Amino acid sequence: MNFANSALLTDLYQLTMLQTYYAERMQEPAVFELFARRLPPERGFLLAAGLEQALDYLENLRFATEELDWLAGLGRFSPRFVASLENFRFTGSVHALPEGTAFFANEPILRVVAPLPEAQLVESRLINLLHYQTLIASKAARCVLAAPGKLLVDFGMRRAHGAEAALFAARAAWLAGFSGSATVLAGMRFDIPVFGTMAHSLIQAHDREEDAFEHFAAAQPGNVVLLLDTYDTEAAAGKLVALAPRLRERGIKIRGVRIDSGDLAEHARRVRSILDAGDLTHVTLLVSGDLDEYRLRELLAAGAPIDGFGMGTRLDASTDAPTLDLVYKLQEYADRPRRKRSEGKATWPGRKQIYRQFTARGELAGDCLGLENAPRPGEPLLVKVMENGRRLVPPEPLDAIRDRVRVQLAALSPALRAGQGEPPYPVAIAPELRELATRLDQETH
Amino acid sequence: MNFANSALLTDLYQLTMLQTYYAERMQEPAVFELFARRLPPERGFLLAAGLEQALDYLENLRFATEELDWLAGLGRFSPRFVASLENFRFTGSVHALPEGTAFFANEPILRVVAPLPEAQLVESRLINLLHYQTLIASKAARCVLAAPGKLLVDFGMRRAHGAEAALFAARAAWLAGFSGSATVLAGMRFDIPVFGTMAHSLIQAHDREEDAFEHFAAAQPGNVVLLLDTYDTEAAAGKLVALAPRLRERGIKIRGVRIDSGDLAEHARRVRSILDAGDLTHVTLLVSGDLDEYRLRELLAAGAPIDGFGMGTRLDASTDAPTLDLVYKLQEYADRPRRKRSEGKATWPGRKQIYRQFTARGELAGDCLGLENAPRPGEPLLVKVMENGRRLVPPEPLDAIRDRVRVQLAALSPALRAGQGEPPYPVAIAPELRELATRLDQETH
Repeated sequence: MNFANSALLTDLYQLTMLQTYYAERMQEPAVFELFARRLPPERGFLLAAGLEQALDYLENLRFATEELDWLAGLGRFSPRFVASLENFRFTGSVHALPEGTAFFANEPILRVVAPLPEAQLVESRLINLLHYQTLIASKAARCVLAAPGKLLVDFGMRRAHGAEAALFAARAAWLAGFSGSATVLAGMRFDIPVFGTMAHSLIQAHDREEDAFEHFAAAQPGNVVLLLDTYDTEAAAGKLVALAPRLRERGIKIRGVRIDSGDLAEHARRVRSILDAGDLTHVTLLVSGDLDEYRLRELLAAGAPIDGFGMGTRLDASTDAPTLDLVYKLQEYADRPRRKRSEGKATWPGRKQIYRQFTARGELAGDCLGLENAPRPGEPLLVKVMENGRRLVPPEPLDAIRDRVRVQLAALSPALRAGQGEPPYPVAIAPELRELATRLDQETH
Repeated sequence: MNFANSALLTDLYQLTMLQTYYAERMQEPAVFELFARRLPPERGFLLAAGLEQALDYLENLRFATEELDWLAGLGRFSPRFVASLENFRFTGSVHALPEGTAFFANEPILRVVAPLPEAQLVESRLINLLHYQTLIASKAARCVLAAPGKLLVDFGMRRAHGAEAALFAARAAWLAGFSGSATVLAGMRFDIPVFGTMAHSLIQAHDREEDAFEHFAAAQPGNVVLLLDTYDTEAAAGKLVALAPRLRERGIKIRGVRIDSGDLAEHARRVRSILDAGDLTHVTLLVSGDLDEYRLRELLAAGAPIDGFGMGTRLDASTDAPTLDLVYKLQEYADRPRRKRSEGKATWPGRKQIYRQFTARGELAGDCLGLENAPRPGEPLLVKVMENGRRLVPPEPLDAIRDRVRVQLAALSPALRAGQGEPPYPVAIAPELRELATRLDQETH
């Protein structure tokens, strides 16, 4: 299914609104901004991610002939309107936070300026693309902060929500500082290191566990990581110790072991002792099984001798906070700022910029959400990345984004790094922005 | 990105195991079963979904040349092994629950019998495909049960986890009894009814709210659903009443209104009064905004005069239970039953069947998980759907699956229908199965 750039990957109401815009010739420039209305209680910061895929989408967006035929057949749209979509292209400009930038509630991570129909149609897929990778990069960053220096690998493909989520989770976790992913296709597409051990099925398919270990080791002498918990974890570690000399004679070195069930801290301690006593001090110890940043902290606080963690389901579905309140709102149309005032959902109008201040030591000191044309002290974070529907710069190398994340995470306050949302990071609203909002509220509709 | 059937959409360890199987010539038939180890506390039953896509995957699975080149370049796999993958096809057989069948913990929803490497490689994607649609169909069914007779529409594309999740959520919700989806591409691909209203941006792009209403109504006279809460919900309802006679003169009838913020029950009551007093009793009232089955029950219990619900984020991410503990385990290899005994993760071995009994009134009375070759009283639920890698029957029409769901939901106990997990539905383990497990445990490994 090649649908990722389909123009029909949108909500129907975008098309019904486009038909209105077409009928009324509403083609003036519209300014939409994409931001998180609030952070989940479980999050003190978010990391922007997914921009690369969002720009791909905008550059390649068009209606296929069979899609237009299908739309025409729906009976909802006038033939002239459907015909007008044939040449639909995104011709606007985009400002955005570079991927890997930390951001907070109400701060735009993307701004689209384009003729109203173009800026409108793309809403659903832009949110869809930026939402998921931002969700996962933010979750993965919390895992990285919880387990400094440890090997962290994305194991989540099977319970990610579909194929695209699996691929993008691998990318987002890599950006956030993971060591790699088990998802092979993510390795091929994004040049992310791939990791893999063995499953219980390989052990079960052999009559003797030690035969399974030996066969597996012989088949990939350079990458031997053995799974210990199919029947009895410590007994398996003992078998491994017994097997190691024979493997060594054949030139095969065991790199690591994995434990996937039971009391992971306790098993890790026992297995570490067995391995060390068996002259296998170099063998690393990986664990997996329903892990998230909370469990990582617990295991490390308990002093479990664990070298690496396979993070699956709870990473790829961001189980403790599976969605973000990310929205895309009209802030200006035809050179006039606009403001939605729905209860609990009012927006800050106009073209905004985030101005970020730093302490002398380089720590994030506070942001100001202001208007682009009324600069405030601090570094402006949104940069122009697309003009006339074309990227202004080539895709950013993922290593550069990883470096940015490293710098950003180190610049967070100790409370934010520790995964706490309190006290919240200070985001001030510039007086010019407050004045604009007040003025718009006083106008009647 | 056309990756949905890529053979590299799998975990690396499947390939490292395949290399072992290749080296050891382990090609005997393997039996894997896919089941939920346990249900989330928030779920009393699950509905099987996604079989269609799983069978598509199995039928079309192959390695592309560039994928094999990439694998060869990794340096992990022997050239002969990589070359052997060129002709890799899935040639096995599949038993499965028909889509829309209710099932419970430990009950297999899919069984694969195939040469070990084939059955192994497909694990990751089979779980990925069946997990998400099962998750969403089960969630959607709870919404259907919570709001009998109401219009329920999937609005969740933007915060679904990626493109595939958005499409499959629309399909799964439709199977479970929803009225349709806002996701246009899902309408085209699955022939699901599409629904759409308007967004706040259309209102905001106009200087006057009443102009926005009139323009929108004129542009699609057959499908006018107006959004009321951009500025002041009751004031907007008043404008609508004022506008209606002029629209009527032009032959335009307002079908519905939508409220997306604030106290939905209270706004619904006030808006209903305003519309009724304005001779607009035929106008239906839709609400949206962070809805799930719990909110639906609350709103309906409060007597809110609501005709339909747009269900977004909390449906497509199944927020209260965003993953299921769905696994795929080896149960037999080379004609010998196999059993994993990991702590808390032990499996029931052998080729199993679900035998379901019904009361005289057609209600589900209890299941027995037994061996396929030792039938128990009740209706066997798993049916053969694929042999020699080819489907045995054409794809099931979605309407037939919807009918099955309707029957299944009506046959659940009142407690399960009410969304309660207690008391759990009875699933007995057949004595033959217990005996087999005990016998295997007594064998040494």
